[in-house]
Amino acid sequence: MKNMAALEPRYFRWQMQDRVAVMRLARPERKNPLTFESYAELRDTFRALAYADDVDAVVFASNGGHFCSGGDVHEIIGPLIQMDMKDLLAFTRMTGDLVKAMLHCGKPIIAAVEGICVGAGAIIAMAADLRLGTPETKTGFLFTRVGLAGCDMGACAILPRIIGQGRAADLLYTGRMMSAEEGYQWGFFNSLHPATEVETQALQLAQGIAAGPTFANSMTKNQLAHEWNMSPEQAIEAEAQAQAICMQTQDFERAYHAFVNKKKPVFEGH
Amino acid sequence: MKNMAALEPRYFRWQMQDRVAVMRLARPERKNPLTFESYAELRDTFRALAYADDVDAVVFASNGGHFCSGGDVHEIIGPLIQMDMKDLLAFTRMTGDLVKAMLHCGKPIIAAVEGICVGAGAIIAMAADLRLGTPETKTGFLFTRVGLAGCDMGACAILPRIIGQGRAADLLYTGRMMSAEEGYQWGFFNSLHPATEVETQALQLAQGIAAGPTFANSMTKNQLAHEWNMSPEQAIEAEAQAQAICMQTQDFERAYHAFVNKKKPVFEGH
Amino acid sequence: MKNMAALEPRYFRWQMQDRVAVMRLARPERKNPLTFESYAELRDTFRALAYADDVDAVVFASNGGHFCSGGDVHEIIGPLIQMDMKDLLAFTRMTGDLVKAMLHCGKPIIAAVEGICVGAGAIIAMAADLRLGTPETKTGFLFTRVGLAGCDMGACAILPRIIGQGRAADLLYTGRMMSAEEGYQWGFFNSLHPATEVETQALQLAQGIAAGPTFANSMTKNQLAHEWNMSPEQAIEAEAQAQAICMQTQDFERAYHAFVNKKKPVFEGH
Repeated sequence: MKNMAALEPRYFRWQMQDRVAVMRLARPERKNPLTFESYAELRDTFRALAYADDVDAVVFASNGGHFCSGGDVHEIIGPLIQMDMKDLLAFTRMTGDLVKAMLHCGKPIIAAVEGICVGAGAIIAMAADLRLGTPETKTGFLFTRVGLAGCDMGACAILPRIIGQGRAADLLYTGRMMSAEEGYQWGFFNSLHPATEVETQALQLAQGIAAGPTFANSMTKNQLAHEWNMSPEQAIEAEAQAQAICMQTQDFERAYHAFVNKKKPVFEGH
Repeated sequence: MKNMAALEPRYFRWQMQDRVAVMRLARPERKNPLTFESYAELRDTFRALAYADDVDAVVFASNGGHFCSGGDVHEIIGPLIQMDMKDLLAFTRMTGDLVKAMLHCGKPIIAAVEGICVGAGAIIAMAADLRLGTPETKTGFLFTRVGLAGCDMGACAILPRIIGQGRAADLLYTGRMMSAEEGYQWGFFNSLHPATEVETQALQLAQGIAAGPTFANSMTKNQLAHEWNMSPEQAIEAEAQAQAICMQTQDFERAYHAFVNKKKPVFEGH
Repeated sequence: MKNMAALEPRYFRWQMQDRVAVMRLARPERKNPLTFESYAELRDTFRALAYADDVDAVVFASNGGHFCSGGDVHEIIGPLIQMDMKDLLAFTRMTGDLVKAMLHCGKPIIAAVEGICVGAGAIIAMAADLRLGTPETKTGFLFTRVGLAGCDMGACAILPRIIGQGRAADLLYTGRMMSAEEGYQWGFFNSLHPATEVETQALQLAQGIAAGPTFANSMTKNQLAHEWNMSPEQAIEAEAQAQAICMQTQDFERAYHAFVNKKKPVFEGH
């Protein structure tokens, strides 16, 4: 398969830490806004990650103390005002395709969210598998404040499953900031860390997951997305098949032999 | 479209505060029980609200310090005992139609829940978009106590999405009261306020939402209900279409121009 | 219908307390691991419970201070390593069938979870309707640690609905232990009790539920499982039918007459 360690993206930053890709948006002087170009490049990168053989987990980190200020007012919202429906739908589909690509990239994604995390930035954090924040992180699904609906890039479906329907409705109708403490109490953030440590913690968590059975991790990610609206019976059958596949990996055998020999298993991802 | 400000309901109270409808059940001396007639009139009113042009949000408030004592024992349960299956099903469908009408009325509904909120009253609070309580609010899905199942008016589907499957099972199997503090910790209540302030707070919240882009708010409400059992992919495509529609409203343009001119946007709802 | 009070299972313990079945895994000296035989016997027992007339609720209790240590390494994982896909899938389907049998056994299940609750043991707790823990309970979905995926026996579908998608992803990707306090804060445990009291509390809770309208309780259980991935409209219609059925029980009439006569209703389960 394809190797992605040498990726040189134009519109965001990318570096490898062992087998963990650490990415972050560019333009910290403006709190890392998104543009048409960065949306497209992010979408293409997460799509490529599904086939990457040298990346086992992803940290989506902050830059300059902030995660993302959302779609750029001048470079995105201005042009949108001029577009006809064909082009508007092409844009909203492209943004949605980024979320779909994140859900189906096959690698666990951990967001390390510092400072401002709003609009499409909040959506990117929401679309990650795990989220670490700092006590100062401010997360806002502020679409209503720019005249739009809360239903952006899957928010009305995904956010309620993370924090509950009532809390999601609050954030989506009011566009207000969710404090870090709220986010933690509600299960949006898995943990909070000082800003000086959050990226290191996310990296350690990612490396711990990447040291596990990565083929099986990828199946976990797949099932978490696909079982979303299955009945319990459908989900249980889907997992019977998925887990039987994982039981044929050598990693399962490696774990068994390590246990019998009272050693820690070393997984190889197949 | 139809104007509803002048509505004069027979079985509940109705008043407008600017573009927010404030409604409350009647008969505070009995903690506001529901009757066949009030169910039907509430259902018809929420159905009409979908087409109302002069209402942008709803506060479902309490009366005399209580929200609702549920279906009246003498006026509802007594007659039900005598009914055949055809009439029983007509009744349970009517009550379910009230919840469906609330979900699809197109206006955000904020419940201001004081005191007793039980049975069908708890369902009405559950079917609202946002819920504000007081420290004394007692909420009970007490159907099991009257010999019925917890599956009333959508509770087995809706309640788990607000507070989680395990907590919902607890309330539905035991019929016990959920304290206000539990309700707040679990995400049933968005916030708690002193009884003297809860209605004012709900009204302020409703007016804040009503001052936003109301066409887009209505789309948020629509999507929150329709994406319930969509796959993530279906939901993301549905939101791409819904948000593209909102991007053609003048409210989106108004927000952009206000931002560029460093002003606060004034939305007009189209 | 069939009576189950006299059941003498080979691979787990079974006793009746009035109309509540109290079951617990055997082999406390090894923290109650599961084997092929105990999986199959548990599955068959929960399937039979759907037709049992003398059991109204189930307590799945601990033994020797622990709930369950999961699939036995020597008796399950060892043999699995040798199996071909046909036999692996037969195994994963059998384990999934246990969860399905628990969801559809028609009796509320309360898990009393002491000490270690890991792997398939954590799944059994998850598949119960209510969960009581102790401050020392440690719950781990540790499949990743043995080289497998988190998608085991429905976990990727069921766990997110109990504790939220982000917290479930944390537990399933890392295989880490969830502390009792986390489990309580997140809604996995309905309550925590001292180890000396948790089984008594679970039994009291079960007896309280069993003293209710058990036909209606069974309908609640049915609807909680079947409405899982219905739309709100489908769920509301399903509940209109289910509740109309319950309104034709004599228990509903009994409750009405007891209320009118200011007495406590005595339910009979039909």
